[in-house]
Amino acid sequence: MTVPTLLVLDAHPLPRLGRLTGRARIVHADAATLAERLPEADVLLVWDFTSTAAREAWPGEGPRPRWVHTASTGVDHLMCPELAASDTVVTNARGIFDQPIAEYVAALVLAMAKDLPRTLELQGSREWRHRESQRVAGTRACVVGSGPIGRTIARTLKALDVTTALVGRVPRTGVHGPDDLDRLMARADWVIAAAPLTEQTYGMFDARRFGVMQPSARFINVGRGQLVDEGALAQALTRRWIAGAALDVFRDEPLTPDSPLWQVPGLIVSPHMSGDTVGWRDELGAQFVELYDRWEAGKPLLNVVDKQRGYVPGH
Amino acid sequence: MTVPTLLVLDAHPLPRLGRLTGRARIVHADAATLAERLPEADVLLVWDFTSTAAREAWPGEGPRPRWVHTASTGVDHLMCPELAASDTVVTNARGIFDQPIAEYVAALVLAMAKDLPRTLELQGSREWRHRESQRVAGTRACVVGSGPIGRTIARTLKALDVTTALVGRVPRTGVHGPDDLDRLMARADWVIAAAPLTEQTYGMFDARRFGVMQPSARFINVGRGQLVDEGALAQALTRRWIAGAALDVFRDEPLTPDSPLWQVPGLIVSPHMSGDTVGWRDELGAQFVELYDRWEAGKPLLNVVDKQRGYVPGH
Repeated sequence: MTVPTLLVLDAHPLPRLGRLTGRARIVHADAATLAERLPEADVLLVWDFTSTAAREAWPGEGPRPRWVHTASTGVDHLMCPELAASDTVVTNARGIFDQPIAEYVAALVLAMAKDLPRTLELQGSREWRHRESQRVAGTRACVVGSGPIGRTIARTLKALDVTTALVGRVPRTGVHGPDDLDRLMARADWVIAAAPLTEQTYGMFDARRFGVMQPSARFINVGRGQLVDEGALAQALTRRWIAGAALDVFRDEPLTPDSPLWQVPGLIVSPHMSGDTVGWRDELGAQFVELYDRWEAGKPLLNVVDKQRGYVPGH
Repeated sequence: MTVPTLLVLDAHPLPRLGRLTGRARIVHADAATLAERLPEADVLLVWDFTSTAAREAWPGEGPRPRWVHTASTGVDHLMCPELAASDTVVTNARGIFDQPIAEYVAALVLAMAKDLPRTLELQGSREWRHRESQRVAGTRACVVGSGPIGRTIARTLKALDVTTALVGRVPRTGVHGPDDLDRLMARADWVIAAAPLTEQTYGMFDARRFGVMQPSARFINVGRGQLVDEGALAQALTRRWIAGAALDVFRDEPLTPDSPLWQVPGLIVSPHMSGDTVGWRDELGAQFVELYDRWEAGKPLLNVVDKQRGYVPGH
């Protein structure tokens, strides 16, 4: 019996796949060599989840792997019509980032309520300036995205006594549908974007929606940059339609030094790090090995992405 | 029947005591006039809780008010041996600051775990630099001070899945005694000072205790500046005995521009604002009026400070 060929779209550091020794022939590829190596692969591990190389290489000639796993929650960087139409199973890193991202959102909510950025600024200029801050308990949040990340964010905010509503693609128990979004945004103190990037969510946070928000409200994006019309957000902040915002994800990453977003008043910019706590790469590697165990044993895979929708459906 | 005389040690803004119209003769004083007016007062409201004028004026000649209320949790700024030995009842603002301070501590814990100060610094220089951050869930906190503020901090941190130990003056169910402090500090990721200033707590966080902490641990003080040997803390940070700290209270407030504390590496300095959320002064005023209602009706007062210990005992 020949061992399956596992093609890894590399990033640094490499995944620790020692447990697969003798169980997979591991072949490495980068953006330049992926297209050429794809036909020989049984499994593709998209370890470099910042790369769109898989999406670009996939439509080419020859056979294709039966299984693709991405070390990320979002699959927008690898999905293409040919992959969606194929029999190849796509799995993702669902679960790894839930709690870290929820904590990151809580950190941003509390930091903004307590005016921490201004405190650090005043410290820099050695100024003692007492201000009143905001109580977080009793405020309202609207979390857009009802997958595990959105639900964990909601649970964490509720633990801080924030009244939290979840919005998903379809209404169900405990989850509002898109029709409720404007109404919920209009009364929220915190609007948090944690949705996958799909045709329905692309650009959903636009000038009209920022216009619906309260002047005292704040917006946080930990989903995908493309959910947001960045120009409209910058304008909403500059014109004080809303009180503040934090973006951890952007349309073009990394943000270049000349991006105007670095200096929008009231905007906190962070480098797509919300889910990445110490040890996250090891957790991602271990998760893949666990899925490989199942695949090898012929058991059904977990975290199987609905390729039409672009995420893992269901609770 | 003559209405009682209520002497108010003023601060700006003044308390809103409209509900006491006709029920109290309200007399205002500042640091210069307090000593002179004290003998005529039935009640003293220390509204300016930053002032030590009450402590200085109290030992003087003449009769003294039967009741002193301070619009603060700490009473260190007003207690003196003569007041402690007298029959005068002292009450404080217990309860008003619990949740705001607990949220402020959570904001600091999360901001430090997620490296938010560095993120803001990098944003200022337009640098995209991804870092790994820390998961807060599963870390350990040691909260020193087992009054309502300490307990609310502990409850809030537990809601974020932080394993939290409380340390108080005497061991009891759910509260460790001082003998456990070194052991708890040695394994804590977060040491949080929320104790009243007493003879026992003065300078308790010194070089030896910072030396006991883990190099990855962080220290937060939201109690009183005098709990901490500030020089020892600065040294512990500079020598990297500990990973970070945040001080909201200081031995001398306000901190002057020439204080070395503004620039200690890894130290977040904030201007004694942790408990002061929007509306806090109204809450303090309403709390005093509620106590006045009881006092006027001859009912026992609440929030009665044990003048020997320097705080409201119980639980």
